[in-house]
Parts: sequence; structure tokens; C-alpha cells
Amino acid sequence: MAAPFNYEILDLTDEQVDAEVAVFGALTDAVRRLNQATLRTTVDHETVEDVRRQVDELATRLEKSMIPDNFGVSFTKGGRIRGYGNAVVGLRNPNAVPVKVVQDKVNGRATAEFELNALHEGPPGQVHGGVVALVLDQVFGEAAAAGGVPGMTGTLTLRYSLSTPLGPCSAAAWVDRRDGIKTIVKGELRRADGTVTVTAEGVFILPKWAREQLAERGEAPPQYE
Amino acid sequence: MAAPFNYEILDLTDEQVDAEVAVFGALTDAVRRLNQATLRTTVDHETVEDVRRQVDELATRLEKSMIPDNFGVSFTKGGRIRGYGNAVVGLRNPNAVPVKVVQDKVNGRATAEFELNALHEGPPGQVHGGVVALVLDQVFGEAAAAGGVPGMTGTLTLRYSLSTPLGPCSAAAWVDRRDGIKTIVKGELRRADGTVTVTAEGVFILPKWAREQLAERGEAPPQYE
Repeated sequence: MAAPFNYEILDLTDEQVDAEVAVFGALTDAVRRLNQATLRTTVDHETVEDVRRQVDELATRLEKSMIPDNFGVSFTKGGRIRGYGNAVVGLRNPNAVPVKVVQDKVNGRATAEFELNALHEGPPGQVHGGVVALVLDQVFGEAAAAGGVPGMTGTLTLRYSLSTPLGPCSAAAWVDRRDGIKTIVKGELRRADGTVTVTAEGVFILPKWAREQLAERGEAPPQYE
Repeated sequence: MAAPFNYEILDLTDEQVDAEVAVFGALTDAVRRLNQATLRTTVDHETVEDVRRQVDELATRLEKSMIPDNFGVSFTKGGRIRGYGNAVVGLRNPNAVPVKVVQDKVNGRATAEFELNALHEGPPGQVHGGVVALVLDQVFGEAAAAGGVPGMTGTLTLRYSLSTPLGPCSAAAWVDRRDGIKTIVKGELRRADGTVTVTAEGVFILPKWAREQLAERGEAPPQYE
């Protein structure tokens, strides 16, 4: 696996990045649709087996040329950031919800509106508690970054007050205060009717090993955006 | 969406359940492979577009007959549980890691070994903090159930002490104590070398609305298994 923060600077033009965003974004969306159809289909077993064989063939075609392991994060000379693999927001990650997080750097705040579906189920009809944590962790990290102090999750505490039905949801997080190398972020998840169902507090910190590694290279901490 | 705990009792034989486990399990595994190939492929854009068209066709075939929304949980007359949609452990959910959780009912403990890959990335080369929370929430809930007191996450507190590289991981959770309708669960995540990287504590509780709904029907709380 690539070393943390060992990112590449790529010689790609904005046009090339736009093209890969379009082409791979469309593939990822199609595969997301297939993910949901795989879970919800009631077609006969013969059809399922035939589809499975064809899915295997398509995977084989894509695997003919692949990066060796994880996607990592790379930057272009023009300043574009290619964090396509991120488990929550990654453009090329079909498992990513997807969530589009909006950072407000003036107020150290991050917000996101997104749709949770059958793939995100825990208790029947409801969002899995872990999926709530998954999304909030990302939104919280981006709030810390929007506040000017990017870091990694040190602690995260979630309070589940009400159920969150599958469907449209929104999340918001904001920098509550700073304490040395710690950034304390607070935030919440709202269900479709606007009711807050989960509140959370996180402490974000750039860990010692990462600060040392960056200092050795004379680099600043990366931004989350 | 289905009402919480509004589960069906299906008239399926064990052989029918075994057959659907085999057929849909294989499709789900193939789609998981496609998910990873979608993220990691470096084939040319023309091939990607062709694959995308074919993925769309396969989705259309599966969508010809589908359940209307989420999968929910159903039971067979023989006592088999079909919670195939679960976001962490669901047999038919291609987004599920997958994690196979082993419940130890004697000691109120749950454990899981699993592999996290490029689809679970946060910081370059490392497991996304939210994915850690996603998996632990499930393992913690199953520990509460193994301890005889199933419930939903009330609070979950995670402490990220060390980085967790992508690769083989394990999780363990156990009932620490009970306090009225609350079950306090503690647990941890270990990376491949056996080092604990994340510790967590959760309070599990069957919420009031769920207890009322079950009482109205004269039903006992469902088991997580």
C-alpha cells in the first residue's frame, strides 16, 4: 500500500481531468445502479447466473490494466485533486454513497445533502447506524479542513436520538473550538423532514507520525477538499 | 419503506434458502469484484464507456423484477433469517465489506476477521475512519445481541489511536455491563500485525418507539444474528 501522504504530482491538463471525471463518473454511477439492482432483483436464478457470468467478464476486461492496490490521492500541476477512491466521496468508488460535501471556509463549516437507499440499511427501513458514522466522519473531517486545520479523526462520539428512515438526508458539521493541535468539531444528521436524528462530536488531530513525516519533507498538511 | 420490525414470515424450505444464498451470493461477489475493478482500472476511455453500457444493460435486466425499495428482514417458517440487505454483513449487498461476525453467546462477545481494500480508503493507504465506525457499529450490535440484549446504537464513541493500513483486520466487542435497558459494549479494531488501532465504547438500547411497537404486537425484540 502507498505510504500516507506519499502523493504524486501528475502532469495532467484540466481537460484531461474533466474527461476522466466524465468517463469514470458515468461508469461508477452505472455500477452503483447495478449494486442496488443486485440487492433488490427478484428475477429467476438462471438470469441471475447469466448476469453473474457477464459481470465477471466485465471485471476481467477492466482488470487487464489496473493500479496495483489502492487509489490514494494525487494532485495535478494545475492544482486539481484526484482523491477518487475515498470511501464516502470518491468519484470512482462505487461503494461511496455518494456524498458531495460543500466546505464553507469562512465559517469553518461543511454540509452535505445525500440520498441513502436499500444499500445503506440496518434495522428494516432505517439507515444503518454505522453508515451514519461513515458519512459524518467524512463531513466532520471536511469541517475541520474548512476551518483551516485539516486532521484525522482522533475521537468521534455519536448520539443516536431518533430513527433515520432511508431516503434523503442531510448532514452539517462545524468547528466548535480549537485546543492546541486539536480541532473540536460538532455536527448532526437530519432526516428528510428536517428533524435532527443523530448528533456528534469529533476531535480532529494530525497525528504525530504524520506531522513528523511531513516535517521531514518540509511539507504542509494536505487539505481534505 | 417498510415499517421497522414489520418483518415477514416466508414459506421457504431450507433448500430454497440454500439455493438463493448460493446464486445471489455468487452474483454479489462478482459485483464486489467489479466495484474494485471500477476504481482501480487503467484501461482506455473507450473500453470504460463500452463496459459502462454493458453494466447498464445488466442493471436493466435485473431491474425487470425488483422489490419496491429496501430489502428489510424476513424469516422463514424453519427459522432462517434473511437480512440480506444489511450494509455491513448483507449477503446480497455488494457494498457490504463483507464481514462475517461470529457471536459467542456464552460470553456475550462478537468477533470478526475481514479484509479492507481500495474501496475502504480514507487517508492514502489507510482505512477510512468512517469505515472503522461502520464495521464496529455492526460488531458492537451483535455483541449486545450475543449478550442476550439486542438493541440499537444509542451512543458510540471511537478513539483512533494508530493508523490502520488497508489489508486484513479484525474486530472484537464484548458486553462490559448492563444498566437497566442499556447494554454497554466495549471493543476494538486490530490491524494485520495484531496491534489495536481503534478502541470504542457503545451503549445499545431498544428505543421506546420500538419497544412500544413490539409490545402492541406481543412480540419479543428481534435477534441480530
